[in-house]
Amino acid sequence: MKIISNNFVLLIFFSTTIFAFSQTQGTLISDMNTLRWEKVLPGVWKASFGESGLNPFDYSAPSKTNAIKNLGEAPFPFDVDSTFYQLTNERATIRLPLSKTESIYGMGLEFNGLNRRGNVYTLKVDHYGGTMGYTHAPIPFYVSSEGYGVLINSSKRIKIYVGTANRKDGKQTKPIDRTTNPRDWEARPAADAIEASVQGSGLEIYIFGGITPLESVQRYNLFCGGGILPPKWGLGFWHRTPTAYSDEDIYQEIKEFEENRFPLHVIGLEPGWQNFAYPCSYDWSEERFPNPKEFLRNLKNQDIEVNLWENPYVAPTSSLADKIKPYVGSHTVWHGTVPDYSIPEARKILMSHHQKEHIDLGISGYKIDEVDGYDFWLWPDHASFPSGNDPVEIRQLYGLMIQKEITDHFKQQNKRTYGLVRSSYIGSPSQNFVIYSDYYGHKGYVTALSNSSLAGVLWTPEIRDAKSPEEWVRRFQSVCYSPMLLLNAWASKTKPWDFEGVTDIIRENVETRLKLLPYLYTAFYNYNQQGIPPFRAMVLEKGYLGTESLSDGALDDVKNPYAEKTKLEVTDQYMMGPSILVAPFFTGQTKRDVILPKGNWYDFYTGELVGNGNTITVAAKLEQIPLFVKDGGIIPMLASTDIFDEQNLEVRHYGQKQNHYLLYNDDGVSYNFEGGDFSLIQLQAFQDKNGKLKGKVKNSNSKDYRYNSINWIWMTY
Amino acid sequence: MKIISNNFVLLIFFSTTIFAFSQTQGTLISDMNTLRWEKVLPGVWKASFGESGLNPFDYSAPSKTNAIKNLGEAPFPFDVDSTFYQLTNERATIRLPLSKTESIYGMGLEFNGLNRRGNVYTLKVDHYGGTMGYTHAPIPFYVSSEGYGVLINSSKRIKIYVGTANRKDGKQTKPIDRTTNPRDWEARPAADAIEASVQGSGLEIYIFGGITPLESVQRYNLFCGGGILPPKWGLGFWHRTPTAYSDEDIYQEIKEFEENRFPLHVIGLEPGWQNFAYPCSYDWSEERFPNPKEFLRNLKNQDIEVNLWENPYVAPTSSLADKIKPYVGSHTVWHGTVPDYSIPEARKILMSHHQKEHIDLGISGYKIDEVDGYDFWLWPDHASFPSGNDPVEIRQLYGLMIQKEITDHFKQQNKRTYGLVRSSYIGSPSQNFVIYSDYYGHKGYVTALSNSSLAGVLWTPEIRDAKSPEEWVRRFQSVCYSPMLLLNAWASKTKPWDFEGVTDIIRENVETRLKLLPYLYTAFYNYNQQGIPPFRAMVLEKGYLGTESLSDGALDDVKNPYAEKTKLEVTDQYMMGPSILVAPFFTGQTKRDVILPKGNWYDFYTGELVGNGNTITVAAKLEQIPLFVKDGGIIPMLASTDIFDEQNLEVRHYGQKQNHYLLYNDDGVSYNFEGGDFSLIQLQAFQDKNGKLKGKVKNSNSKDYRYNSINWIWMTY
Repeated sequence: MKIISNNFVLLIFFSTTIFAFSQTQGTLISDMNTLRWEKVLPGVWKASFGESGLNPFDYSAPSKTNAIKNLGEAPFPFDVDSTFYQLTNERATIRLPLSKTESIYGMGLEFNGLNRRGNVYTLKVDHYGGTMGYTHAPIPFYVSSEGYGVLINSSKRIKIYVGTANRKDGKQTKPIDRTTNPRDWEARPAADAIEASVQGSGLEIYIFGGITPLESVQRYNLFCGGGILPPKWGLGFWHRTPTAYSDEDIYQEIKEFEENRFPLHVIGLEPGWQNFAYPCSYDWSEERFPNPKEFLRNLKNQDIEVNLWENPYVAPTSSLADKIKPYVGSHTVWHGTVPDYSIPEARKILMSHHQKEHIDLGISGYKIDEVDGYDFWLWPDHASFPSGNDPVEIRQLYGLMIQKEITDHFKQQNKRTYGLVRSSYIGSPSQNFVIYSDYYGHKGYVTALSNSSLAGVLWTPEIRDAKSPEEWVRRFQSVCYSPMLLLNAWASKTKPWDFEGVTDIIRENVETRLKLLPYLYTAFYNYNQQGIPPFRAMVLEKGYLGTESLSDGALDDVKNPYAEKTKLEVTDQYMMGPSILVAPFFTGQTKRDVILPKGNWYDFYTGELVGNGNTITVAAKLEQIPLFVKDGGIIPMLASTDIFDEQNLEVRHYGQKQNHYLLYNDDGVSYNFEGGDFSLIQLQAFQDKNGKLKGKVKNSNSKDYRYNSINWIWMTY
Repeated sequence: MKIISNNFVLLIFFSTTIFAFSQTQGTLISDMNTLRWEKVLPGVWKASFGESGLNPFDYSAPSKTNAIKNLGEAPFPFDVDSTFYQLTNERATIRLPLSKTESIYGMGLEFNGLNRRGNVYTLKVDHYGGTMGYTHAPIPFYVSSEGYGVLINSSKRIKIYVGTANRKDGKQTKPIDRTTNPRDWEARPAADAIEASVQGSGLEIYIFGGITPLESVQRYNLFCGGGILPPKWGLGFWHRTPTAYSDEDIYQEIKEFEENRFPLHVIGLEPGWQNFAYPCSYDWSEERFPNPKEFLRNLKNQDIEVNLWENPYVAPTSSLADKIKPYVGSHTVWHGTVPDYSIPEARKILMSHHQKEHIDLGISGYKIDEVDGYDFWLWPDHASFPSGNDPVEIRQLYGLMIQKEITDHFKQQNKRTYGLVRSSYIGSPSQNFVIYSDYYGHKGYVTALSNSSLAGVLWTPEIRDAKSPEEWVRRFQSVCYSPMLLLNAWASKTKPWDFEGVTDIIRENVETRLKLLPYLYTAFYNYNQQGIPPFRAMVLEKGYLGTESLSDGALDDVKNPYAEKTKLEVTDQYMMGPSILVAPFFTGQTKRDVILPKGNWYDFYTGELVGNGNTITVAAKLEQIPLFVKDGGIIPMLASTDIFDEQNLEVRHYGQKQNHYLLYNDDGVSYNFEGGDFSLIQLQAFQDKNGKLKGKVKNSNSKDYRYNSINWIWMTY
């Protein structure tokens, strides 16, 4: 499928055929105006007023319009005269209705909770920690439990009141006397709207319709160009070496991996590969890497890709420094200059240096650090940049701009890159990057896997270190079921086999994940083609009943003076691909609950039936991370643990349902699949005359990435 | 002293005699303009550009110009062409220089640390917790260890970078390669300036000169009208009764205080005195208070004042509701309307109701709650108000507006009120209110006592509850040495005698504090007349050597990936009045260090010499909070624990120095002191021919608030 249109073309094309909603002034909201919506694609509407600043969609891939069209129509989610805007000297505001029972998900890569109702978020790219809405990817996209999604398309910091701002002319609820009705009184009475504003002179808003939340997430992802398809090596084992390591240290490290029988697909070099870092020179350290070309060739010969760490702040000694100088902002970061990457020439300077110094030598991607940063590290809000763009907007888009430049640069060479980044924004689905964080809460890391799917980003709960063998295993297991299996030992120097007595367990968990490559790769293909996130929050899963409850909210003059009830949410389980439910254990747990969606569910390891639409309790086994498979789940796995050896497949089937599964394959590295160079093989489990399940394989298209052998394994028989 | 001038008169008067600084463009900062400073009073300069919004000084008392003049001249702290501003579409920015070794204090009522360097604050009135700069009194005033102070006079949220924003054209420091010099590399390289901005179209900045930090604090306080002098009863024992208590419950409570021999000077009624609360009716509950007039008369007869809790959100059933309706904003808080108190008519409606319903009946003051509030409780940033003022500015000033209205209203009746409030802003020194918080960290409460003096506010570390008798004692001791001795048992219902075995200790601590009334009252007089905070950070004390140090800053990939060194500051001791150093114990401590400023210091209880300019270690005694007195310290105390019985004084003298002390007294309730109706008695300790210390008493002015007996106690002999 070749994408030829882009957003701008789209808007012009569709605005001639829009259906305009009634222009009746909303009677309730006296000081606001009614928003006027245009349909831009089936199930996608846009409204705007005033002037917006930098457009995030300038840093996104073109929308996958055909894929959106294939999803068909969706109902417009609101009454026509119930959406509002206001423009004052100070800010641009919108108001969208909210029903009483609706849950609201999304608002970016949060590490806590799922349902955002009752909170206020200031969506700002920042080092995570503390202020609500400050995070690595504060995507102003939310999805309602009623199915629709909303994107506020602004690069300003958006302040969004998720059902908390009550208007005197909104749907009135009677106040409650706290003295006589202390248990009924609420510190945060629910409001009948989501209200949001920016300090700017306009806004653009999109509605992505959907009957289910997943459908609106798909529309959003496709509108951002569809999800990425990583190169196959990107789904292998990543290891980031200590920062001061030399080429010789790394050769030694690779040898140790071999000796310990651990797979190794990507080596990440940390700051010390450069002759100056923090700020960065982007030039090789002659001392530690006297011959980078040879070094990279040696690693390539062992099928190991190399990824380079960098941050965007330019050291005065860099070979880039003079060229970039006319394009830098007023302030420095770690005494390095800050290129204005909203200027194409600045991006060109960066990439032509990187092409010559890194990519031509064999570098396969980058880790872009410090694009999130606390305010006391990065440039201030009042900095100035040569483009004249708002420094706050540049900061919001900085990580996205660099991702887009690198992704596109590799694409021009028909190579898929895969890398790491610390910040992202609207447009992230089509960037070949995974987000990581210095925040290191294991539970938060798992919650983020759910939230990433509601925000159009990929997230890795990377491993750095652990305080016990148990924690080492539990963290390793979680990262195995994420978009990037990454050990980041830049500072700790920890190796996978460093914890007594658990090395075999770690190895087995890694191997299981590697064997799942065909299943995972196909899930990414569906992300690319249909916008279905490969790792998904349970709330995107059919038949999953939310389990939100409220705490008691007892008055405590010290701990809870407002007697607030706290939302209790289940955030410790998620879906991987179409059929696997992942339910990680955390250190210290001896058992845990798992909520199963409707339908029969089976133990991944044994094929046993475990439940149906109920909550089960699972006893902890250190060796295993609990994985459950849907009835009829078809899981193609490699017979070998070598991800580059795809000759022999084992196809597992769980439960008793007949089912079929489209297995995707391609060359694993290029963009030729966009021109049709891929295979889609239908794996079909059907009941024969005797009611016995049998497997059938059918090529669905002409291209041939076939396997030597495909063995069916009937897990539940 | 009668104050006749106000700021506006001042500015006009002085701007005719200003000395204009050189208009030379700063050569370093290419994209900024040089600020032009006008001298408005000796040691006070002003610069402004563009348009500001609401002026906090409209909600402050007139400046005490004579008192400022009495402080004499002070040097202008900067090079004339080293201060800058910039005005863009998005924001107004200033830049003021900062030397390498300077410490910066202030930025409002913070509960952590003292030196603000290296951090970024967004100064926003908010429920304390989390975001830097969000606090009850985010005063944009700072004072440098070099002596001068700076006020950014804006009601917008100010974002201030305290020595963190480095410019490429600032004083350059060389970057450091982290790989080869990991210990020298700094995550937050120090900048040579303080930079601040608002999202608005102009700013006004004041410099308050000073040779010492205290001097600039004094100038700031006096510019805001000088500190307040509370009524004497306000320095007595406050008790807030449980919210659903009736008049009969309170009579019973008072009886219990008598039976347990605990003093009681103010009863605070919590929400339930009203017939509707959260939002508020401001009307008495007929059920719980059928005859408020009689109730108040009964309490008055027992010398007990009554303070009423309220928040500013108006219940639909309030007798105020209809009258205030034309003046309320677009949004509700707890379904109550939000009056626009920037409109004089709205304030008038409030006060005429309060006069008739409360003050005429004998109410002496208010506790204004919920003017700080989280974003998910209060009105949103995009709300609209009938005045057309920015809702963000109204929020910043809301607590101040109400304080000012109540303070002035009582003043018109020649009564000093004293109350509690949850938020304040520039102009706070002249409001008769003390700030409190739901945050309940004991250490943070003590740190806030220091920071309050650097922000021109009063703060009470009120007691609510404790987990052990020890904690109960330790918290009680801290609150004894604060501007308001307050037990806030609205929810816990705890009584002072509720903890086994420590009731006598509590009573003795309270009694000691009450006996200190003459000393404390005089300290407040000096706050009023000279702007000297009665409770002060050690950094405002002469001879105190800062003890800031840095943590090791070891690299830890989980806990400290940027190898940041943490500031270690001493924030657990402070000054009360001219001579007493307070060093509270916290639960669990068996000993603590106390840093003594230069000069001899003596134990308050024994008169023993404890040290001189050194750090001493004090062993914990549950009965006592460590108090130390300066050499020559003269401490006038009541002989009785009855604060209304001032006939007999005991004057303690510590150490060996001759000294004199001006003891202030007046009627304790009215503003007649402003017309000269007060006494100033000189207490003089002098050495006779034999070198023996003797005491002398001399009336310094004609007015007579003399005592029957004044007994000198030579503590160190």
